[in-house]
Amino acid sequence: MDDTPRRKAATLQTLADALGVHRSTVARALNPEERHRITPELVQRVMEEAERQGYRRDIIAASLRTGKSRLVGVVLPDLANPVFSTILDGVSVTLTGHSYSMLVAGSGGPSDKQSEIVDTLVGRRVDGLILATAMRDDPTVSCCMRLKVPTVLVNRAEDKMRVPSVVPADHIGMGLAVDYLAGLGHRRISHIGGPEEVSTGCLRRQGFQDAMTAAGLDGSRIISAKSYDREAGAAAARQIFARWPDTTAIAAGNDLLALGALDYMRAAGIDCPKQVSLTGFNDMPFIDLVDPALSTVRVPQFDMGKAAAEMLLAAIADPDSAPQVQRHPVTLITRQSCARVGV
Amino acid sequence: MDDTPRRKAATLQTLADALGVHRSTVARALNPEERHRITPELVQRVMEEAERQGYRRDIIAASLRTGKSRLVGVVLPDLANPVFSTILDGVSVTLTGHSYSMLVAGSGGPSDKQSEIVDTLVGRRVDGLILATAMRDDPTVSCCMRLKVPTVLVNRAEDKMRVPSVVPADHIGMGLAVDYLAGLGHRRISHIGGPEEVSTGCLRRQGFQDAMTAAGLDGSRIISAKSYDREAGAAAARQIFARWPDTTAIAAGNDLLALGALDYMRAAGIDCPKQVSLTGFNDMPFIDLVDPALSTVRVPQFDMGKAAAEMLLAAIADPDSAPQVQRHPVTLITRQSCARVGV
Repeated sequence: MDDTPRRKAATLQTLADALGVHRSTVARALNPEERHRITPELVQRVMEEAERQGYRRDIIAASLRTGKSRLVGVVLPDLANPVFSTILDGVSVTLTGHSYSMLVAGSGGPSDKQSEIVDTLVGRRVDGLILATAMRDDPTVSCCMRLKVPTVLVNRAEDKMRVPSVVPADHIGMGLAVDYLAGLGHRRISHIGGPEEVSTGCLRRQGFQDAMTAAGLDGSRIISAKSYDREAGAAAARQIFARWPDTTAIAAGNDLLALGALDYMRAAGIDCPKQVSLTGFNDMPFIDLVDPALSTVRVPQFDMGKAAAEMLLAAIADPDSAPQVQRHPVTLITRQSCARVGV
Repeated sequence: MDDTPRRKAATLQTLADALGVHRSTVARALNPEERHRITPELVQRVMEEAERQGYRRDIIAASLRTGKSRLVGVVLPDLANPVFSTILDGVSVTLTGHSYSMLVAGSGGPSDKQSEIVDTLVGRRVDGLILATAMRDDPTVSCCMRLKVPTVLVNRAEDKMRVPSVVPADHIGMGLAVDYLAGLGHRRISHIGGPEEVSTGCLRRQGFQDAMTAAGLDGSRIISAKSYDREAGAAAARQIFARWPDTTAIAAGNDLLALGALDYMRAAGIDCPKQVSLTGFNDMPFIDLVDPALSTVRVPQFDMGKAAAEMLLAAIADPDSAPQVQRHPVTLITRQSCARVGV
């Protein structure tokens, strides 16, 4: 490493002196949002002098001045889950485009760990929060509201919709899966539900029940999993075949639960799709490559991430706006895991 | 929202007054690293009073006082890629355990975008940086060194190893794949290399050449892909079969390139593994479910993330320590995408 000091002496004033202009002109030239107020030629000269002197904008000092940190906290249930990392990617694209940075935290744990995470993010003076972790009645959301930190929920919403939310059309999506299976001739369809305390688990279960009833079928064959993972899906499939051995199709609450059901069926010698058809939910990356390729409900995770970030920027700009829920359309994707019954 | 003001009036002094102790005692009780210096009973009383008064630690003010932000910047080439999100998960676990927060940025773009990202992170006074984006000779690393920001590379290292790095045993790993294929009787093995300007692409290619030479085989059948994605893998496979149509096995530089090769072979009517065996690198989540399940070299991404964070904390504590490279062991995972030649 060389001997250059970490913080150089270049300031707005040294730039202004070198250029023979006022300090405020330099400040404007260096601020992407103010830049349009001065000529491009002057912006160019300031940028070149800033480069020459090795000037760095001190974002912390700027944030103490403006009261805005241009920092957003993003809390995900699981950093390694590709569904959430795709949402994060969308959030990032929008925030970076607005000169915001992201503080990212993973919270696999209990809700008191979540409130600790939010405490830390608020302590860092984030301008707002995006939570992908919401329960249907969430104490962390209450805490954000009490602290008046603009907060947007993504993927999972609260029942009472106290804050803006961006979610998939869960109820409709599960209806698409059920209608597809019923259209293939299936009558004895079981559902592996997600956790009941999150909106996705609850709404997709309701979507299953409603679509089954509408098709004149019995919608009571439901096992709700404790968590959204492969192990829970395998355990639920075991229970389904123990209780309803004549099941010919399973509509799972998400792709991981479906993969678990596939694991169980493979181990139990049940052929998918010849004996039992299977659908998932999310259209996770690479789920199309699974054998058999999984039929599923595509959720636009990247777009939802972008929309959540846009909604948060709007809430930061106008903290008194009414909370709205944006429901993103979903699409049925049919692949090899489903077959016509009895064929 | 209720009418509670966002910033409450509770301070170290109001807590000290309420408890009849000195301000510095309160400060110690609230600081996880100082807490052991006072009695657990007193810590408990302070915590309860802090909760009662709604006291929040102001991390920004603390950082201005201590000169440490307890903030680390993490730059990933692609936020949605499960290889990097698993590394991020490991980084997060270690940093959270040391009361650090992560500023996360994705940088799919050109290297000048990377230096802009690093500029922003440094402007936020991060105590250090973890880069998963390094090229073999990286101008962004030069910039970090000039600014004296402790920096650790993960997954990809520089040729000159100017800063601490945590990488997989790339050279050995590709050797394992080649030895396995040669052991199955393959003689005409081709390699889809990763981009040559990053260490993983270069070292795995060298590992291929060296292992082929050691096995007495021709190690010159190499097409290097421009990027690590499925499309590039398919394009490279097309070139391989055009130039060396008698190829019986392909060792790909990573799993995504292997998936692309699989796409090409499927479209061209080449059966894997009956006609051509295929190996990947990384053992990405769910790659075991692909049809045929991919033989690959397992890289401990989560552990590498944890190790990179530990190395960075050490570099922050002692900025003058010599840079070291930590090479994590890899394992060959054999699945259904490889078969004995001619069987």
